Amino acid sequence: MSVYSIGVDLGGTNLRAAAVTPDGKLMEKIAGSTDLTKGRDHVLADIAGFIDQLRQKHGHAGLAGVGVGIPGFIQIQKGFIVGSNNLAVLENHPVRDDIEKRLGCKVILENDANAAALGESWMGAGREVDDLVLLTLGTGIGGGIISGGQILHGSEGMAAELGHITVSPNGNPCGCGNTGCVEKHASATAIAAMARLLLGKEGLTSVDVYNLAVEGNDRAKMIFSHMGAALGIAIANLINIFNFPLYLLSGGPLPAWDFFAPAMLEEVKRRSFTFRNSPTRVEKATLGNEAGLYGAAYLPFLAAK
Amino acid sequence: MSVYSIGVDLGGTNLRAAAVTPDGKLMEKIAGSTDLTKGRDHVLADIAGFIDQLRQKHGHAGLAGVGVGIPGFIQIQKGFIVGSNNLAVLENHPVRDDIEKRLGCKVILENDANAAALGESWMGAGREVDDLVLLTLGTGIGGGIISGGQILHGSEGMAAELGHITVSPNGNPCGCGNTGCVEKHASATAIAAMARLLLGKEGLTSVDVYNLAVEGNDRAKMIFSHMGAALGIAIANLINIFNFPLYLLSGGPLPAWDFFAPAMLEEVKRRSFTFRNSPTRVEKATLGNEAGLYGAAYLPFLAAK
Repeated sequence: MSVYSIGVDLGGTNLRAAAVTPDGKLMEKIAGSTDLTKGRDHVLADIAGFIDQLRQKHGHAGLAGVGVGIPGFIQIQKGFIVGSNNLAVLENHPVRDDIEKRLGCKVILENDANAAALGESWMGAGREVDDLVLLTLGTGIGGGIISGGQILHGSEGMAAELGHITVSPNGNPCGCGNTGCVEKHASATAIAAMARLLLGKEGLTSVDVYNLAVEGNDRAKMIFSHMGAALGIAIANLINIFNFPLYLLSGGPLPAWDFFAPAMLEEVKRRSFTFRNSPTRVEKATLGNEAGLYGAAYLPFLAAK
Repeated sequence: MSVYSIGVDLGGTNLRAAAVTPDGKLMEKIAGSTDLTKGRDHVLADIAGFIDQLRQKHGHAGLAGVGVGIPGFIQIQKGFIVGSNNLAVLENHPVRDDIEKRLGCKVILENDANAAALGESWMGAGREVDDLVLLTLGTGIGGGIISGGQILHGSEGMAAELGHITVSPNGNPCGCGNTGCVEKHASATAIAAMARLLLGKEGLTSVDVYNLAVEGNDRAKMIFSHMGAALGIAIANLINIFNFPLYLLSGGPLPAWDFFAPAMLEEVKRRSFTFRNSPTRVEKATLGNEAGLYGAAYLPFLAAK
């Protein structure tokens, strides 16, 4: 009997699952989708079906447990999802207990960005440290904080809302009610919005802006400088607060690293004497889209420690 | 034999020590001073003498250990002090081991603001929670973070440099190299500096500004509004990062609470949806100058847990 766990990455449309060994070897990965319009029971049956498919193949006996990464706030103790824009269909329902009942095995729910941070600390760029912060750059900016090898959840599972760190008190308005949230100045969406302002074109994506920067477009480069500076203020704050050894970035805009990192690191250096006086690294995450899957798979092993 | 510990609060000039029971009852407190100009050996002998004075009276057998709160960065593992402006005389010396040798008992060093946060969580405003952040408003702004009942130290004991959170990216310059650190906009020193700018008088202290505000002076009130708004940005960031239930303020400007708190809480509300959606409290610390002494005394009990 070989021991393994199953990690699930549940998105608004995509559903992925992987069987992983205790030392982080990927045994098998399956990917598909779930149709939210068919309602809660259908979605939960899809999730359970995915997990069971892997379990049938790799054996009931060795399964240490199941971890599920979900976009939204998770009430860990209760096993409920709250405040998930993409998965509202699963709110106000005992999701964990429901899946456990369908499968007859232990299930742990976790916020997807927290799971990604845990994945990076287990098998990615943070393998050698117990403390790190991950910032995920996408439509917004999410994050996860690993402190002493554990996910920092906060009282209601709402910790690490790192996209809403204020980096420009009178900056761009945010749906959260604030102005100048870092995600309104440094996410992929913010890059596209700046392209509209600065390049005068509709419909450009952050990838388009990256390609323009590669071609030498100065305005595209300015956009990444602004993005980097905004990120730098947020990261300097995090370093001054945590004095952790490692701060990771992941997400779509990562290929533009050479365009935004210089401005980012300049701000970090200037705004954090802790950075200047301790071996602190600001680096690319290495697991990409797999981080959340690894992190979800690690949850049962971590819980058993 | 009654069990107790001894907490020491070592400042630039003042030296205080207290014997405290495991349930937080103050058995005895002694206060004096130490003369840094007489050199390291003299200072260490003074500290050991203070501790021994209490131990002679309350008994060797019951002493669980000694905690010492010190302004500066503490290398916890090594028991060294680094980067202490006030106590440079103690740097590059095995302070912990030295005091232990003089006394023949276990000694724990801790940063003074961390000790104050621990004291508040043990016997002060944070008695009912395991997670809190303390901001100490003085010449600068210090802080301590209690996570899961433990002090968050960071890699080099430099965590919780909360005075250097950026709240105004192009704001007042700070000795740390940054501009717009919260301590340059919301400390007692910052209040005095704003008084100079806004009231046109030299030599006003934060207490003078408070008295003017009480008398109805609009410019004095403006100063506290600015201070409160700056604090609010920093605290909103902390709430968005930690989702802890409690954020405490202590220090000289606390009596001006009614003048700065409205602006502070307005910023917190606007800039943190976590604050608006969870039972988060921003409150006055309750132990005042005693917080550090209680926290230092609690260190040996915490270590034994």
